[in-house]
Amino acid sequence: MKRTVFFVSESTGITAETLGHSLLSQFDSVDFTQVYMPYINTAARAHALCERMQEAADRDRARPILFTTMLNQEIADILKGGHCFYQELFEVFVEPLSAELGVPPSRKAGLSHAITKPGMYTKRIDAINFAMANDDGVRPDNFVHADVVLVGVSRSGKTPTCLYLSMHFGLRAANYPITEEDFARGELPREVWQARKKMFGLTIDPQRLKMIREERRPGSEYASLIRCQHDIREAHNMFKRLEVPVLNTTNQSIEEISAQILRGVKTPLNT
Amino acid sequence: MKRTVFFVSESTGITAETLGHSLLSQFDSVDFTQVYMPYINTAARAHALCERMQEAADRDRARPILFTTMLNQEIADILKGGHCFYQELFEVFVEPLSAELGVPPSRKAGLSHAITKPGMYTKRIDAINFAMANDDGVRPDNFVHADVVLVGVSRSGKTPTCLYLSMHFGLRAANYPITEEDFARGELPREVWQARKKMFGLTIDPQRLKMIREERRPGSEYASLIRCQHDIREAHNMFKRLEVPVLNTTNQSIEEISAQILRGVKTPLNT
Repeated sequence: MKRTVFFVSESTGITAETLGHSLLSQFDSVDFTQVYMPYINTAARAHALCERMQEAADRDRARPILFTTMLNQEIADILKGGHCFYQELFEVFVEPLSAELGVPPSRKAGLSHAITKPGMYTKRIDAINFAMANDDGVRPDNFVHADVVLVGVSRSGKTPTCLYLSMHFGLRAANYPITEEDFARGELPREVWQARKKMFGLTIDPQRLKMIREERRPGSEYASLIRCQHDIREAHNMFKRLEVPVLNTTNQSIEEISAQILRGVKTPLNT
Repeated sequence: MKRTVFFVSESTGITAETLGHSLLSQFDSVDFTQVYMPYINTAARAHALCERMQEAADRDRARPILFTTMLNQEIADILKGGHCFYQELFEVFVEPLSAELGVPPSRKAGLSHAITKPGMYTKRIDAINFAMANDDGVRPDNFVHADVVLVGVSRSGKTPTCLYLSMHFGLRAANYPITEEDFARGELPREVWQARKKMFGLTIDPQRLKMIREERRPGSEYASLIRCQHDIREAHNMFKRLEVPVLNTTNQSIEEISAQILRGVKTPLNT
């Protein structure tokens, strides 16, 4: 069964997309075509979207689903008049919350992802720049300024996780790739070791690591299963000595890994 | 007025945090303390959270607000029994959606940000790696493989926007910093120019640019207002010749800029 879904907003549409996407994940037997429609902020754009909804309805032989966080009543009325299953995701919570807080809502649109707190926004952008400048262990002398330091072997997922932590939570996240040299010495460089209180080890299943490395350097010793198994085993020994929490990226997304890091979950090391 | 807000989930909590944060933005007269609580997936953790809620209530002299997307009924009941204004953000939409689709919900938790579609997830991670490898114009020969190329002067917001586009939408986003050399020649390198159909120009208010550059190199000619004004003016001339859409990052967040890029909004060039 095919159904088209529109995520609609007068601004970025991120809230509608996030909650709408969560809701769809509860119905995995349906084949959803997802269409992201931010900045539906004029009557003309709303009418054009109604035409697209009709096309989708004809194609799917079922009306499309429209998830929206629309505060503009005129545009909301146009969209409701279109051929769709209209789900407003925001309005239903505003009145109860207003009653609880004892203050009226501002009714201003687009505040959620705008720069309403410049200090907070600057902190996030600075954190992104920090993550970029401190990727791949290039500046261990900067680790003293980091909030979090991820360690793990090459291709264990350090870089995307650091970027996510910085972008979403404004954390200054650095990472250090453990290399053959570190294994041989049995320890990390002093500046890296000194950051162990804010350190998380990333591990990954050797078979999965082999697949990822094969894409990067096909047929290389670096991508061989024996080398991957060796690297992961040595990394585990290092994590044990450092006494750092270990997270496994094999089946977990960067969102899941990041949420665990934020909680400071101490996952027991699986050896 | 102070109020504490908990974003609670049995998995990442991203949905609760996103919608909850949107709702709070409607009440800017209230001073919210926001606490992110992912992985509340045991009765013990739920009880510990109830204690934290009571502490917040005592401190604020008002019960905390709890935004959640909790599918586990046992844990939901524990939290509802705590001293809080409990707002379930998910459940209310599941039944109407199920009726519309004619299929029951899976009731499985944590699907929204898990790796349920490995192909899609790999595409995102590849896009992040592409953005990292193609930052700051280091490989214009790769622009042919990009979905989007951002151009603009140094510190106009290209890097964070590329990372956001790659992380959230799986777009292969590259960027090129326009330099004095390009201005002098009056054109961009051939490989950059060839990407103009998928190009967006980023501009920024010269005063704001000066502030950002001052943080990087205080007192430098690079950060002077005259230099910033010159760079922005020359960049505008370049954007005109290229006939690319221009977006202004002065007062817009990376989320807002990215949403406009996704829409392919053709903003008229403001000169």
